[in-house]
Amino acid sequence: MMDEIKIQKTLQPKEKPQLSELGFGNYFTDHMFVMDYKEGRGWHSPRIIPYGPLELDPSVMVVHYGQATFEGLKAYKTKDHHVLLFRPHANMERMNISNERLCIPTLDVEFAVSAIRKLVEMEQDWIPEGENTSLYIRPFVFATDPHLGVRPSHTYSFMVILSPVGSYYPEGIDPVKIYVEDNYVRAVKGGLGYTKTPGNYAASIKAQEVAKERGYTQVLWLDGIEKKYIEEVGTMNVFFKVGGEVITPALEGSILAGITRDTTIKLLKHWGIPVQERRISIDEIYEAHAQGKLEEAFGTGTAAVISPIGELNYQGKIISINDGKTGEIATRIYDTITGIQTGVLEDPFNWTLKIK
Amino acid sequence: MMDEIKIQKTLQPKEKPQLSELGFGNYFTDHMFVMDYKEGRGWHSPRIIPYGPLELDPSVMVVHYGQATFEGLKAYKTKDHHVLLFRPHANMERMNISNERLCIPTLDVEFAVSAIRKLVEMEQDWIPEGENTSLYIRPFVFATDPHLGVRPSHTYSFMVILSPVGSYYPEGIDPVKIYVEDNYVRAVKGGLGYTKTPGNYAASIKAQEVAKERGYTQVLWLDGIEKKYIEEVGTMNVFFKVGGEVITPALEGSILAGITRDTTIKLLKHWGIPVQERRISIDEIYEAHAQGKLEEAFGTGTAAVISPIGELNYQGKIISINDGKTGEIATRIYDTITGIQTGVLEDPFNWTLKIK
Ligand SMILES: Cc1ncc(COP(=O)(O)O)c(C=O)c1O
Ligand SMILES: Cc1ncc(COP(=O)(O)O)c(C=O)c1O
Repeated sequence: MMDEIKIQKTLQPKEKPQLSELGFGNYFTDHMFVMDYKEGRGWHSPRIIPYGPLELDPSVMVVHYGQATFEGLKAYKTKDHHVLLFRPHANMERMNISNERLCIPTLDVEFAVSAIRKLVEMEQDWIPEGENTSLYIRPFVFATDPHLGVRPSHTYSFMVILSPVGSYYPEGIDPVKIYVEDNYVRAVKGGLGYTKTPGNYAASIKAQEVAKERGYTQVLWLDGIEKKYIEEVGTMNVFFKVGGEVITPALEGSILAGITRDTTIKLLKHWGIPVQERRISIDEIYEAHAQGKLEEAFGTGTAAVISPIGELNYQGKIISINDGKTGEIATRIYDTITGIQTGVLEDPFNWTLKIK
Repeated sequence: MMDEIKIQKTLQPKEKPQLSELGFGNYFTDHMFVMDYKEGRGWHSPRIIPYGPLELDPSVMVVHYGQATFEGLKAYKTKDHHVLLFRPHANMERMNISNERLCIPTLDVEFAVSAIRKLVEMEQDWIPEGENTSLYIRPFVFATDPHLGVRPSHTYSFMVILSPVGSYYPEGIDPVKIYVEDNYVRAVKGGLGYTKTPGNYAASIKAQEVAKERGYTQVLWLDGIEKKYIEEVGTMNVFFKVGGEVITPALEGSILAGITRDTTIKLLKHWGIPVQERRISIDEIYEAHAQGKLEEAFGTGTAAVISPIGELNYQGKIISINDGKTGEIATRIYDTITGIQTGVLEDPFNWTLKIK
């Protein structure tokens, strides 16, 4: 049995940012959820307290050895002022998968979701109501032992912080240009690629910066072994529509099992549109393009939901997809997912959790 | 030009631990070095202040995206009360290699070494004087922007903390048993393997734990692509003596360029013992053993200096090396390196920096 969540309210509520100033991940709400873990005692002392700095020993293991995991999901306000979470259990189940790989104690999924729920409920005035805005929810766990030497920590903190956000990419729902990376590697089978852990993102920064300098928004990773098979894009999974069929890389251990990816696959199946999860080589995509069969490409992820891909650059060979315009399927999926998330459309799959 | 290092002394010096209680990385000295980086301003405000907790925003980028690097080196006290650092410039040059890969601003090597020097000088009473003890020095840099969203941070901290240490392994200089890992992968070419960054260690914890449960001290990593070529051991590079010749894996981007590895190679060459850096398959080592030609195996690293390998387990096939005893070469290298480090032996290579 988990303890009850203790609540300590802030005495200094912050001013809320203007919608136009939001950006992504720059502002944080008034409160945060915290819970501690100690070997022998388990997870304990769940509490909601004023948002404020952590006091960490300079030897804190997370900073030196990166033993940590995180998640990302969103809360939306409906037109009639209800608050919806989108598939929060899926996030917390995935966090446990990450935790197991990182030797971090797992969480009680129900309890973690109830903590998120409670916190978002308290902070509901922070959920922005403009087009393409939402409240981004960041649960994270990190190793807190003050110790140098590689081993699993004996203590951890689980926290949830909230950030009112606008679009993740400046492009919004407009197509992005993607650089196909065949030099740097993000992850490989047998490693941490399927988890949400800091090291995967540290590994991605350099390639992302090089791509940016070349005028590209993001990087499309190829597999680390043959540098041939398509993996994922930055913080998105990737889909292609080729000759009427939708394809996406299979989950083989090196990419994240995106929840938006799963949502997309379920919607496509529901609509009777053929969709396949399998290995896709970059050559196959370029060939499909040469034959006029590459109809659409898009990324899927919580931050941007759907991000159409208008251009690919692989070894200097540039192809334009769907004339650089957002495709029909991408639009339909985007409208459907965001419609369900914001309560505008019905939710036949029971994906939303109404928390108010 | 760097600013001068400001010094603020502690008013509450701690009690020093007993030699027998040291272990590794459990105690920290009274002071630490800190310096900040801000885009546009560069590295600034170098200071030595009382050792104490960091105040970090819960969204601090290092915790979420692992943009950080670190180093590890040691200070020793000589019999006549001088204080020696071992190859500190090599560490800070390597940190810059890591920083470049992680998109972290590089440091002025001379200045960083002078900061370490100053701090160690202040804390010289903390350098333990027992057998196999030293003062472990941990320089580290980490991303400090309070921001969610993957990009390089605009602000960083560089810090140095000090820990009086005993043996890294409970075995001390006695041979360790090593498990050859052919399931989990630590790093792959094109990734971060050659850097000292938290994510590499996060990636290693699980395999290390599984090996421990099986009664092994550490894991020997194989390459992530063919799972065939030997890489390194936990926090050590690895050497084998086969038929009179010493071999060690070449630096191909997936392993750390260990300073103890480099020191070992230079000593072997100096002694006229043949040494080769090249690809070594695990099968080659097992074959050499079958032919009676595998004479020694040992790991090299700052923490343990030299750690003889007495047993390997690869897919359940167990081989004992040199009857599980410390070999001649391992002993000679250990005695020579520690002799130079502690000022007992002459230092023809100019590896030590006398700071007092
Ligand atoms: C590496 C990576 N791939 C894919 C995704 C998409 O996953 P989801 O749809 O669950 O947000 C994300 C973002 O969460 C990610 O970080
Ligand atoms: C992964 C890894 N390999 C090798 C080494 C050995 O390097 P060095 O001899 O510089 O300590 C270390 C330790 O620093 C390490 O962490």
